[in-house]
Amino acid sequence: MADWQEIDGGVTAPKGYKAAGITAGLKPSGAPDLALIFSETEAIAAGVFTMSQVRAACVDYCRTRLQAKASARAILCNAGQANAATGDRGWEDALESARLLGESLNISPDTILLASTGVIGQRIPMEAMRNGIPQLVASLSEDGSDAAAKAIITTDLVTKSIALETTMDGRPVRMGGIAKGSGMIHPNMATLLAFVTCDAAVSTSLWQQMLKRAADRSFNQITVDGDTSTNDTLIALANGQSRTAAITEMGASAEKLEAMLTAVCQYLAKAIARDGEGATCLIEVQVSGAPDDESARQIARTIVGSSLVKSAIFGRDPNWGRIAAAAGRAGVSFHQEDLQIKLGSFVLMENGQPLEFDRAAASNYLKGAAAGAYLQEDTVLISVCIGNGSGTGTAWGCDLSYDYVRINAEYTT
Amino acid sequence: MADWQEIDGGVTAPKGYKAAGITAGLKPSGAPDLALIFSETEAIAAGVFTMSQVRAACVDYCRTRLQAKASARAILCNAGQANAATGDRGWEDALESARLLGESLNISPDTILLASTGVIGQRIPMEAMRNGIPQLVASLSEDGSDAAAKAIITTDLVTKSIALETTMDGRPVRMGGIAKGSGMIHPNMATLLAFVTCDAAVSTSLWQQMLKRAADRSFNQITVDGDTSTNDTLIALANGQSRTAAITEMGASAEKLEAMLTAVCQYLAKAIARDGEGATCLIEVQVSGAPDDESARQIARTIVGSSLVKSAIFGRDPNWGRIAAAAGRAGVSFHQEDLQIKLGSFVLMENGQPLEFDRAAASNYLKGAAAGAYLQEDTVLISVCIGNGSGTGTAWGCDLSYDYVRINAEYTT
Repeated sequence: MADWQEIDGGVTAPKGYKAAGITAGLKPSGAPDLALIFSETEAIAAGVFTMSQVRAACVDYCRTRLQAKASARAILCNAGQANAATGDRGWEDALESARLLGESLNISPDTILLASTGVIGQRIPMEAMRNGIPQLVASLSEDGSDAAAKAIITTDLVTKSIALETTMDGRPVRMGGIAKGSGMIHPNMATLLAFVTCDAAVSTSLWQQMLKRAADRSFNQITVDGDTSTNDTLIALANGQSRTAAITEMGASAEKLEAMLTAVCQYLAKAIARDGEGATCLIEVQVSGAPDDESARQIARTIVGSSLVKSAIFGRDPNWGRIAAAAGRAGVSFHQEDLQIKLGSFVLMENGQPLEFDRAAASNYLKGAAAGAYLQEDTVLISVCIGNGSGTGTAWGCDLSYDYVRINAEYTT
Repeated sequence: MADWQEIDGGVTAPKGYKAAGITAGLKPSGAPDLALIFSETEAIAAGVFTMSQVRAACVDYCRTRLQAKASARAILCNAGQANAATGDRGWEDALESARLLGESLNISPDTILLASTGVIGQRIPMEAMRNGIPQLVASLSEDGSDAAAKAIITTDLVTKSIALETTMDGRPVRMGGIAKGSGMIHPNMATLLAFVTCDAAVSTSLWQQMLKRAADRSFNQITVDGDTSTNDTLIALANGQSRTAAITEMGASAEKLEAMLTAVCQYLAKAIARDGEGATCLIEVQVSGAPDDESARQIARTIVGSSLVKSAIFGRDPNWGRIAAAAGRAGVSFHQEDLQIKLGSFVLMENGQPLEFDRAAASNYLKGAAAGAYLQEDTVLISVCIGNGSGTGTAWGCDLSYDYVRINAEYTT
């Protein structure tokens, strides 16, 4: 059993945080498009960013800031324009956004982190940003998480938000997160953004290590269509307002905090995969028996990213051959004689040999998953064992439907 | 200008080859399903096979044979059953197929190579194979290439065949090839098979090196959906019947032969990409300015494999942002300030900056490509330059259409 409980409040559930989300006029649609997360005291800050060589100005900006000092007071996020591939002017827009927000909040711009999501190649309309920032700051509230969660989405169908509470040193420690994903109804909006707040006291180096590991077990294990964005950003703040003992090395408290951080990231990651464009179900692939965890994760990612597997699931087809083929090409060495494949509770392959199974019942299992969209029951579970190693890994994705093609083809820029 | 001309005859265009294709009753549909390529004299043989850990019996069989001796007299190929993930019995079926053909041709089974394509997990119906082989051998003919090309396809819409002729030492040297691709209307049939025949005299080690390099510049540079098959097989024979001087080291003759081999492989690879399931056009991505050729090829593969790029092309959307994003995540380091992107003759991005361009004209360019399916004009050309390195590379693929999803989802095994 997990040693924490789910609570309300999103990123403002932990002590000392406020948030806001407003319509600043950045999106042509008139939907909310400017979000702010604010810590009343300086928080340590860790970040994980896109590995792409083509990066938005905000990504380079955050990297530079965090390298100089791993702390922050605020995260500003605009939706509508990615501010990627916008050259020197895009960089200046980022600097000016931080400067404007710093003035309005009366804090140093060096303590502000930035994120953007939207159309690649489009600059932020700075007039709207200039007018929006004072209004955004005026809207800051301890109940502002939902407003912020709404203002960071682009074409996501639902907002993604979570908060957890545990006890350390007899005192409550809380963690919250909001995210946006890949509902790419608009083109060029594959961006994954996730912001996590926490009131634990933890050292900067531990926090960064924890965040990297949590990302490897969550956001780095989901795929909607294999495309990596120019703007992918995960930022986690910890401001110490829980007034618990500072966690400075690995041990029971650190493990608990990291498990909670991983749970928050996995919840948000799964919510993003479930909301993938055109998705009718969430696919979870669990791999075991691998030589190490990274190998297992790699196989899980390859299976969940296979267009053939994704379209078979959409067609409610228990097609184990495609799962076996995807496992085989993942780049991890194994003996096909050891391969076991399960779909839900149906064993489809054992010792590398196809088994007889109730095809109609297995197809019904897939139909049940599709019927329960947005419920826990919408999950198709694929379990693969490749040998007797101790490595395990999980990945999440969604099926490939007509709507994916429609969404991504019919829009004309 | 290429130093050769296109001729008729496919794999029987070179001297000393016969071929056949018959309906042996392996496919439920009653379409041709058993093919044979035969060299009247022993030919040196080179092969390139799937890297998947889950492999068909025929792949392991060919690897073992070629490791023992790099020569062959015949290639037997069945369509309908992949004979992959069929365990020990599948391996015995492969051995028996070679033994039966050896008896019928009165040659050693050790000089026979095997290939299969079809549903993973299904064994070859050996009764049909036993009855079919004598009939197949009786059908061998110097005009048999088209029949063989028809018998190796599964759900391809068209057969793929080519033959070239050049002159060496004042004598004609010919090379022919047939292939099947990824018209995966039936599931589990992603298999790429290609067989090349040649009457040049060349050393085994040079021939294998040439084939590997040619595959890296052709078949390894195409993608329909990123899925690698359990059965992918490329085999090339050279029987020396042209009676030209033996090519035993790199030099003018070897370079000419390799260029011809690369041209044959590229022709077949492009034909496979163009016939990808649901495809309405061929996409060719040319990358230049990379530190080395492999880096350039990697970026080209990543762009042509991007679901976002593929669906944008299907939607006739000149969406350069998706191309830039795919280039950026290919795993090759470059400066985004150096990025140039062209679509046909339209320059969409230069020095990492988006340019103004005639969007309607660019969209019309894409529409023209789609209108010309199966013509030379069906090719959408994307050119990307990432810097001033000397590395270049090309990859081919197809767009992502509704039909891809329909084909792969609606079939129920």
